[in-house]
Amino acid sequence: MSQGSSTAPQVDLSKAVGFQPPPQRVIYTARDLMLYALSIGVQPSELHFLYENDRNFSAFPTYPLVLGLKKDNHGVSVYGAGGKEDIPGIPSYDPNKLVHGDQSLEILRYPLPLEGTFELHTKVTGVYDKGKGMVIERTTTMVDPKEPNKPYASMKGSAFVRGAGGWGGPKGPKPEALDPPKDKQPDASYEDRTTDDTAILYRLSGDYNPLHIDPTIAPRVGFKKPILHGLCTYGHAAHAVLKTFASSDPSALKSITGRFTAPVYPGDTLVTNMWKVPSDHKDQEKIIFQVVAKESNQIVINGGCVVLWSKGKRPESKL
Amino acid sequence: MSQGSSTAPQVDLSKAVGFQPPPQRVIYTARDLMLYALSIGVQPSELHFLYENDRNFSAFPTYPLVLGLKKDNHGVSVYGAGGKEDIPGIPSYDPNKLVHGDQSLEILRYPLPLEGTFELHTKVTGVYDKGKGMVIERTTTMVDPKEPNKPYASMKGSAFVRGAGGWGGPKGPKPEALDPPKDKQPDASYEDRTTDDTAILYRLSGDYNPLHIDPTIAPRVGFKKPILHGLCTYGHAAHAVLKTFASSDPSALKSITGRFTAPVYPGDTLVTNMWKVPSDHKDQEKIIFQVVAKESNQIVINGGCVVLWSKGKRPESKL
Repeated sequence: MSQGSSTAPQVDLSKAVGFQPPPQRVIYTARDLMLYALSIGVQPSELHFLYENDRNFSAFPTYPLVLGLKKDNHGVSVYGAGGKEDIPGIPSYDPNKLVHGDQSLEILRYPLPLEGTFELHTKVTGVYDKGKGMVIERTTTMVDPKEPNKPYASMKGSAFVRGAGGWGGPKGPKPEALDPPKDKQPDASYEDRTTDDTAILYRLSGDYNPLHIDPTIAPRVGFKKPILHGLCTYGHAAHAVLKTFASSDPSALKSITGRFTAPVYPGDTLVTNMWKVPSDHKDQEKIIFQVVAKESNQIVINGGCVVLWSKGKRPESKL
Repeated sequence: MSQGSSTAPQVDLSKAVGFQPPPQRVIYTARDLMLYALSIGVQPSELHFLYENDRNFSAFPTYPLVLGLKKDNHGVSVYGAGGKEDIPGIPSYDPNKLVHGDQSLEILRYPLPLEGTFELHTKVTGVYDKGKGMVIERTTTMVDPKEPNKPYASMKGSAFVRGAGGWGGPKGPKPEALDPPKDKQPDASYEDRTTDDTAILYRLSGDYNPLHIDPTIAPRVGFKKPILHGLCTYGHAAHAVLKTFASSDPSALKSITGRFTAPVYPGDTLVTNMWKVPSDHKDQEKIIFQVVAKESNQIVINGGCVVLWSKGKRPESKL
C-alpha cells in the first residue's frame, strides 16, 4: 500500500468531475476560416471554403475544434502560458506526458458564423483510471454570449496522462464499437499528401506547441522529428468524408468522432478509408473511417465515425 | 487635335505629382510574418522566418511590400472599397486597365519589428506618358509614428494604366539598365514550384483581389484562369537570392528592384536566374536576376537587381 501511494496520484473525483473553468473568449474572422481550410487539405475546387466572395462561403464545419487553443485574437500566443488550467482534485502533471486520445464534435446550430466573438464553456465530464494512465474528459460548447442557450457546437475531448493511473478510480464507460465491417473493403478511400509545410501552416490556427515545428523539442518527447497536430489529421479526415459522401456541403456534417492512435509526420500521405454502414435514423447516413499514414502503414486515427444529414434533412436548414 | 483630345486623358501634373494621401495605419503580428514567409516559398529549414521561438526569428525583409493592401488588422478587407485613392489632376480610370509595372524596396532600418502598428506615408513621385499608357509612380515609406524620421523601408512602385497615354506628358527617366551580362550563363539558379494553393495562401496577407482566386473574374480581364499575385512571385525571387547568396540572412538585404513582364499561374515553376556583377561599393554585392515561368518559358520578372550587404557590413548591425 505504501509503495502504491508513493507513485499513484491522489485524485478527488468529487472535486474534479463537474469542474468548470471560466468561459474562454474567442474571436475569429473569415481569414482564419480560410487559413484553416487550406491547412486541412481543402482543394481549390472547393472554393466555398477558401474564398470570402463565393456565394456559398462557409466555415469548414470542424473549425470550432481549433478555438480552444486560439488564445488571443490574431497574434501568436505564448504556448504554455495560457495552457490547460489546473483541475481541482487532480495533482499537476508533466504536460509532456499528455496525449490527445479521443475527440468528437457535434454541430448543434447551422450555419457557423463567418466571423465573430464567442465563448467556449468547458466542463470536466469524466476522470478515469486506465491503469497505465489517467483519462481526463472535457466537454466544451461554443456559444454566442448573447444567446448562451443555443450553442453552435459541442466538443468532447479526452486527454491521456501517461503514468498517472493506478489510483483505484473508475475505468470509465466502454467506448461505442466503431470498427469497420469485418472483411469488407472500404466503400471509398481518399488520399491526401501532407507536406513539410503542413504543420507550419496549421499551427497558425492557434496551436503553437513547439512539438509540431521545433526539431530540438520533438526528440526530447520521444519523436524522431516534429509531428503533425492530431487535429490537423482529424480535419483532413473530416474533409475526406465530407468531400466523398456529401459533395463538400458543410451543412451535411452532423457529428464526427475518432481516436488518435499513432503520430503523423509532416510529409506523410494520409489515406482515409471509409465504410458506409446502416444508420439508426432515416434522415442520416453513417460513415465509419480509419486514417492510415501510408508511409508507416500505421492507423493514425481509429474508431472514426461521421454522421451526415441526408441531403436537405438538416433541421436548421428548413428554418 | 480634336480627335486626340477626345480620347487622351486630361492630366494636370502640377496637381498630381507630389500628391500625398493621408498616412495609412497598418498593423501586423508575428503570425502575419510567418504566413507571408510560407506563401513565398520559404523552406522549413529556414525556421527563423517561420517559427516565433527561433532565436533568430525575423521578418522576411520584403514583408513591408504587402502592407499597402493590408487594409485592416486581421479580417478580410472588402477589395476595392478601400482601393487606391483618386489622385487629383488625373481622371479616374478603370482599375481593370491597371498593371503593376516596376517595384523596388530599400530597407533603411534594421531589424524590422516582429509586430506593431505603423504608418505608410505615400507620395505620387511621377506621372509619365508612355504613349500606350500612363505610368503612375508612388513612393511609400513605412514608419513608426513615434519615430517618423527613421523609416524602416522605402518602396517605389509604378502602375501602368493601359490606354491612358497620348496626352503629351513627359516620358519619364530612362530606367537603369539591369540586364544580365551578355552571353553569360547565370551564376546560380533557384527553382521553386508553386502550387494551386499558392495564390489562395498569399492573398491572406492582404491582397484579396478576386483576380487571383475567382475563375469567373480572370477571363473577363483577359487571363485564362486566376493569376498569381505579382508580389508573391517577387517574394519568391527575393527569397531565391537571399537563400542562395546570403544563407537566408535577413540583415543582408539592402534593396531589391524588378519589373513585372508576364503573368504567372499558380502551379507554375518559378526559376530565378542570378548573375553576380561588380558592385560600386566595397561593402555591397550586386545580383542581377530574372524570373522565368518554366512551363510558359516566359520571363515574368525582368530587370531584377538585389543589393546585398556583405557579411557583417550593414551599418545598423554594428550599432
